[in-house]
Amino acid sequence: MHTYVQDVHRHVGEEVTIKGWLYNKTNKGKLRFLLVRDGTGTIQSVVFKKAVSPEAFEAADSATQESSIAVTGVVRQDDRAPGGFELDASDCRIIQLADEYPITPKEHGTAFLMENRHLWLRSSKQHAILRIRHEIIRAVRDFFDDNGFVLVDTPILTPAACEGTTTLFEIDYFGERSFLSQSGQLYNEATCMSVGKTYCFGPTFRAEKSKTRRHLMEFWMVEPEVAWAELDDVMVLAENFVSFIVQRVLERRQEELKVLERDTSGLERVIPPFPRISYAEAFDILEKHGTETPRGADFGGTDETVISSQFDRPVMVHRYPKDVKAFYMEPDPEDAELALCVDMLAPEGYGEIIGGSQRIHDHDLLLRRIKEHDLPVEAFKWYLDLRKYGSVPHGGFGMGIERVVSWICKLDHVRETIPFPRMLYRMYP
Amino acid sequence: MHTYVQDVHRHVGEEVTIKGWLYNKTNKGKLRFLLVRDGTGTIQSVVFKKAVSPEAFEAADSATQESSIAVTGVVRQDDRAPGGFELDASDCRIIQLADEYPITPKEHGTAFLMENRHLWLRSSKQHAILRIRHEIIRAVRDFFDDNGFVLVDTPILTPAACEGTTTLFEIDYFGERSFLSQSGQLYNEATCMSVGKTYCFGPTFRAEKSKTRRHLMEFWMVEPEVAWAELDDVMVLAENFVSFIVQRVLERRQEELKVLERDTSGLERVIPPFPRISYAEAFDILEKHGTETPRGADFGGTDETVISSQFDRPVMVHRYPKDVKAFYMEPDPEDAELALCVDMLAPEGYGEIIGGSQRIHDHDLLLRRIKEHDLPVEAFKWYLDLRKYGSVPHGGFGMGIERVVSWICKLDHVRETIPFPRMLYRMYP
Repeated sequence: MHTYVQDVHRHVGEEVTIKGWLYNKTNKGKLRFLLVRDGTGTIQSVVFKKAVSPEAFEAADSATQESSIAVTGVVRQDDRAPGGFELDASDCRIIQLADEYPITPKEHGTAFLMENRHLWLRSSKQHAILRIRHEIIRAVRDFFDDNGFVLVDTPILTPAACEGTTTLFEIDYFGERSFLSQSGQLYNEATCMSVGKTYCFGPTFRAEKSKTRRHLMEFWMVEPEVAWAELDDVMVLAENFVSFIVQRVLERRQEELKVLERDTSGLERVIPPFPRISYAEAFDILEKHGTETPRGADFGGTDETVISSQFDRPVMVHRYPKDVKAFYMEPDPEDAELALCVDMLAPEGYGEIIGGSQRIHDHDLLLRRIKEHDLPVEAFKWYLDLRKYGSVPHGGFGMGIERVVSWICKLDHVRETIPFPRMLYRMYP
Repeated sequence: MHTYVQDVHRHVGEEVTIKGWLYNKTNKGKLRFLLVRDGTGTIQSVVFKKAVSPEAFEAADSATQESSIAVTGVVRQDDRAPGGFELDASDCRIIQLADEYPITPKEHGTAFLMENRHLWLRSSKQHAILRIRHEIIRAVRDFFDDNGFVLVDTPILTPAACEGTTTLFEIDYFGERSFLSQSGQLYNEATCMSVGKTYCFGPTFRAEKSKTRRHLMEFWMVEPEVAWAELDDVMVLAENFVSFIVQRVLERRQEELKVLERDTSGLERVIPPFPRISYAEAFDILEKHGTETPRGADFGGTDETVISSQFDRPVMVHRYPKDVKAFYMEPDPEDAELALCVDMLAPEGYGEIIGGSQRIHDHDLLLRRIKEHDLPVEAFKWYLDLRKYGSVPHGGFGMGIERVVSWICKLDHVRETIPFPRMLYRMYP
């Protein structure tokens, strides 16, 4: 039996064994100070030559960075120690003496770090991001689970191309063409007619030949869908959801946010209601600040930053021109050229984190839109069925996890938000 | 605002509006009894001709199965009613009059039901399965989250073929060969060296040309991995985990288990410790009962049923011959021909639900095994690195969610355990 670092506070004055990896070491005469990390925390072990066997001192003396070691000793409370506790070692053993560790405190290039992602994940910064990502995902699930949503996993292998095939990864499915899913939404629309409120949460794929700091080929997306929900309901759900996530991270991951040196004042303001502006109003803002984008077109990344910088919390932009949005969106009854949709833009230049809408519930209108978009009607037979057997107004949204991790952690690049990123020229490790 | 059926008990004597779908209807003179489901439950609404407008009565009279409707009325407690409450309707509106519903109470063939999976999911049996699946998944996450594991999502698009390419779906990744993941384990081994205890949970893929009631092409798998864990630790983790899941479902999903007419007495016995037998002992049982399998080979489905039928709860079979198991398994120090592995077999003929092992932590032995299995060493460079930079004994397991759903719900076929199953000749809807 060994003790995890996070539990040493329960063993003050007792002898315990810590098993972990050597994070750092300093020598001072007959003393060796070993900083040992075990995944739950780090603790300093003091190895005094006269207090241990010659073999144990030799082990402490020769251990290299990231060597796996077991240190036995008495836990001592020490307010000056990082974490508040130290170990007075009575024994030290090396399990495996590490080769010279490639990642050192000096600066490394990104390509090198990405090539060594399996080791880079051991650093304290990456560790903090992993834990915040986990907390965000747990908050996502808790929010929906505790609000009556039923998780219904949607398929990854799909027969239909929702919006053209150019950004899809294609698979040979026993002789049939198949694509990796970009969204579970269409399936969610089927299941919300069964369970009322549903969500799916899984990996999605986009074969986009773009190399930006906001794009990955493989990313995780959560998508709720609610029967009887109209656009306003979707917006209320979205703001409550995002606020819940941010407040949960603030509540439980202060330590990790400190490691990342995240100024949390902006996050603390992420409380509903969020501002709501129409596409037209958003465009007025852009015109005041100057933009290359013509009115009626979708916003670019810079546009989003300009718009969001006007507000102290996430902003929801609704009612875009229908022509820049997906075929399944319900038209605005007050202006059929607009879609009943909403994008949520994160503060601090992190761009769109949520895209949602009310969906078309009229069979004939949906069929017309499918044809207008040159989509294969046969593949959408089941989707059209939903409008024949008890169609109801409904809506939902999708939120990309990596964008949210990026924003909450305030990272420069989305590649650090996922353990093993898949990028345009990067599939290893 | 409308009220969900699950909340009507809080509104006895008040007027509420229920929005849902017509599940069933009976006529009796000037009364129409509408059974309305809304995803959270079903409630009977009594529409009395003299109590409502002619339009409302006409709506109640003409509503077809699965039409979407809104019924307003006063909630009345009635112990004879299904669910304990009824609605005395004051108004009834049809939102969309459903076409003749293809799924009726009569028997349908499987092919027909699978073709209409998007509608079949509305039935009470499928509804119960969906909710039990959700509960199982939530229990999985709660177990690991509450026991210090860090969720680290592993990639779906992978460059290396872990165990041959014959059962892999291949993808063209911008000119490079890539495969859909069959397991996140190798990546978990990297991250457990960072966070100590980790798990991944996502879809996995197997392009197996087999059509059995236990196989899907796309299924969800959860995989924990623990640094410093040896085989015995893996077995203790596995039995506590499975017991936690089963007891959670018993505690929270009694109603759904009743819908499925599940005899729960066997599930109630799923409490640790589970029996542990070696491969050799398991084979002795098989020989007593007669088997075609030669000693030393992997068990077939029938063998697993024979073995598991000897026990009143899941049984763990450990130390299989290394030649029938994966290349990365640690050899038994007492007999190098055996692997330190464990399979957990579910009761009632549901076969293997967990496969796990201690992993090789010695660099040179692992390298030798990779070469013996004709695997591309270059692709495993990062995996071998884990044995060069602080290698430690470690182990874990994988559990397929659909097998567990199948067992807990006691289903005949795994196709009903996942909302949109992907089978050999089935990718629609």
